[in-house]
Amino acid sequence: MKRVYNFSAGPAVLPEAVLSEAANEMVCYKDSGMSVMEMSHRSSSFQAIIDEATADLKELLNVPDNYKILFLQGGASMQFNMVPFNLMKNKKVDLIQTGQWTKKATKEAAILGDVKILASSEDKTFSYIPDCSDLPIREDADYVYICENNTIYGTKYHELPNTKGKDLVADLSSCILSEPIDVSRYGVIFAGAQKNVGPAGVTIVIIREDLVREDLAFDVPTMLRYKTHVDAKSLFNTPPCYAIYICGKVFKKLKAEGGLAKRKEINEQKANMLYDYLDNSEMFRSTVEPGSRSLMNIPFVIGDEALEKKFIAEATARGLVNLKGHRTVGGMRASIYNAMPVEGVAALVDFMKEFEAKEKKNV
Amino acid sequence: MKRVYNFSAGPAVLPEAVLSEAANEMVCYKDSGMSVMEMSHRSSSFQAIIDEATADLKELLNVPDNYKILFLQGGASMQFNMVPFNLMKNKKVDLIQTGQWTKKATKEAAILGDVKILASSEDKTFSYIPDCSDLPIREDADYVYICENNTIYGTKYHELPNTKGKDLVADLSSCILSEPIDVSRYGVIFAGAQKNVGPAGVTIVIIREDLVREDLAFDVPTMLRYKTHVDAKSLFNTPPCYAIYICGKVFKKLKAEGGLAKRKEINEQKANMLYDYLDNSEMFRSTVEPGSRSLMNIPFVIGDEALEKKFIAEATARGLVNLKGHRTVGGMRASIYNAMPVEGVAALVDFMKEFEAKEKKNV
Repeated sequence: MKRVYNFSAGPAVLPEAVLSEAANEMVCYKDSGMSVMEMSHRSSSFQAIIDEATADLKELLNVPDNYKILFLQGGASMQFNMVPFNLMKNKKVDLIQTGQWTKKATKEAAILGDVKILASSEDKTFSYIPDCSDLPIREDADYVYICENNTIYGTKYHELPNTKGKDLVADLSSCILSEPIDVSRYGVIFAGAQKNVGPAGVTIVIIREDLVREDLAFDVPTMLRYKTHVDAKSLFNTPPCYAIYICGKVFKKLKAEGGLAKRKEINEQKANMLYDYLDNSEMFRSTVEPGSRSLMNIPFVIGDEALEKKFIAEATARGLVNLKGHRTVGGMRASIYNAMPVEGVAALVDFMKEFEAKEKKNV
Repeated sequence: MKRVYNFSAGPAVLPEAVLSEAANEMVCYKDSGMSVMEMSHRSSSFQAIIDEATADLKELLNVPDNYKILFLQGGASMQFNMVPFNLMKNKKVDLIQTGQWTKKATKEAAILGDVKILASSEDKTFSYIPDCSDLPIREDADYVYICENNTIYGTKYHELPNTKGKDLVADLSSCILSEPIDVSRYGVIFAGAQKNVGPAGVTIVIIREDLVREDLAFDVPTMLRYKTHVDAKSLFNTPPCYAIYICGKVFKKLKAEGGLAKRKEINEQKANMLYDYLDNSEMFRSTVEPGSRSLMNIPFVIGDEALEKKFIAEATARGLVNLKGHRTVGGMRASIYNAMPVEGVAALVDFMKEFEAKEKKNV
């Protein structure tokens, strides 16, 4: 069976080399005589795996020493609760509404306190990132919350909001490791692994030390306290060991290939191939304003539902799969995460050109 | 590299055939052209995987139609919070204290309500299961809570408590699928997969329909409501897809090998080999009272720390690994879950005999 080009928004494509390595090590990992899945999380073999993954991620993202790196369960959805549980003091959160995931975060934070929407792009189906240079941030806001890359709508902050001194909490699920970032500008970063890093079931949290609090404003379950996991170095209870192991392999590969500066270059190359075509096509168009476009998730439409359906079906037959857009945007979406090779994007653009030429003749 | 016999308490040994199959399917699953790790959780390919896993588990455990099966994240530790969040009405829990895991469950339930310890075996280092035929259960208790098999202490309920009509909630992490059970006698069953089922990172929950409540006694995060996951059939957010896929393979194998009645027979054969030797040895002895012994976790001691250390080191050199006992019990512990072959237990007993004979000569 030939591998397809998988444009899924997540879980998503992983590097074939990582999968092959994992396959080779599945029954016996190195000299352990067992699979990574069978290892005690208290064993020195697994400790080496999680330590190395942590160190590599720290190096890749240039994480300052006063930040802690955690591997947790529950996805970004669980972070929608952990963040307010742990960071609320005045029980006030200021948030920028850019799509479905900030709406879900709003709903969960609102269980515990007051959420103020500082700005929103809902007026135009979240097709842009609002101007965040001078937001009406509250004096007593506990933090400012954003989703930095919006998987569904294909938008991305190209400049972080001016938080006026408040801590920034950011959901980076669909853009983490796609380019270098300045971690010191954030209070908390979190990201479900299943888009740009590894398999579903592990969530990366990077938190500034002073935000890892002992005394919280609520009676918080032990499992939902950052301090629990910081103190236990992500081993309070059994972690998703195998998922962490795969993430570790992805980190190693990114390092070997030149780190995030190089990665950004490749990601820009890939995204520009598609955006350039979209901006020049007479059939397809991007749904996102030029200044707000994501490098990772690229929604596009024809504006003719029947033709879009035909396009998706024919693309699938060519091994270009999972191109259907989210129901709220319609049309198509190509998620081109780190692991999507340049050749995959080239194949997609070639097919789009061919489809456009063929359908024009049919008119 | 030769595979070892892995007596780890969890994560633990998995069937080699399952690992080999997973290795073969890692880069390309069937005709999907991608790894299971790369599949959208909304795809028909993954839907088939989770549907089949659910159906097979239902068949194996003979789960009645009025129970829901969930695959969640967070381990048993997260269930220590989800159970009281969802099941408390009068905010009173009656619990039987049989070790570290019921203590952790007590601590979390006590954040939300009042926990009464109905009985405890702490007086003898949790080496037995208390008599549960006539417990002082409160009239207004919300439920009765037990840990059915205690991984650390090697004890197991051979008869379920008389709950006097109250719902029974049971942590089956280290005994689920080791033998047939009568699900209808429980209100909620939960089990981390990483002992007897699959990889760490997925937790099985089986809950009676009427306990899946909309109106709860607390403001509960969406992710910690059973109703969220029942309504979404475990797909509210991205589930730990790959871990569920491996569990599914284990279920298929158990079915193919004759189901849980056959499994019980084999597990009894394995456990008896070890218990019989322990009860007749002049060097080794079981730490657990005969009527309370686990089929899965078998702690044993020599009573001489230096000799125990020597035993563990020599066993490890023979490929019999992870035999060190938990620090609270000391000595050794052999966890012999479903996937530990009869040959592994035989090899352990043979080595124990050899060690005993050799060390006696040395005296």
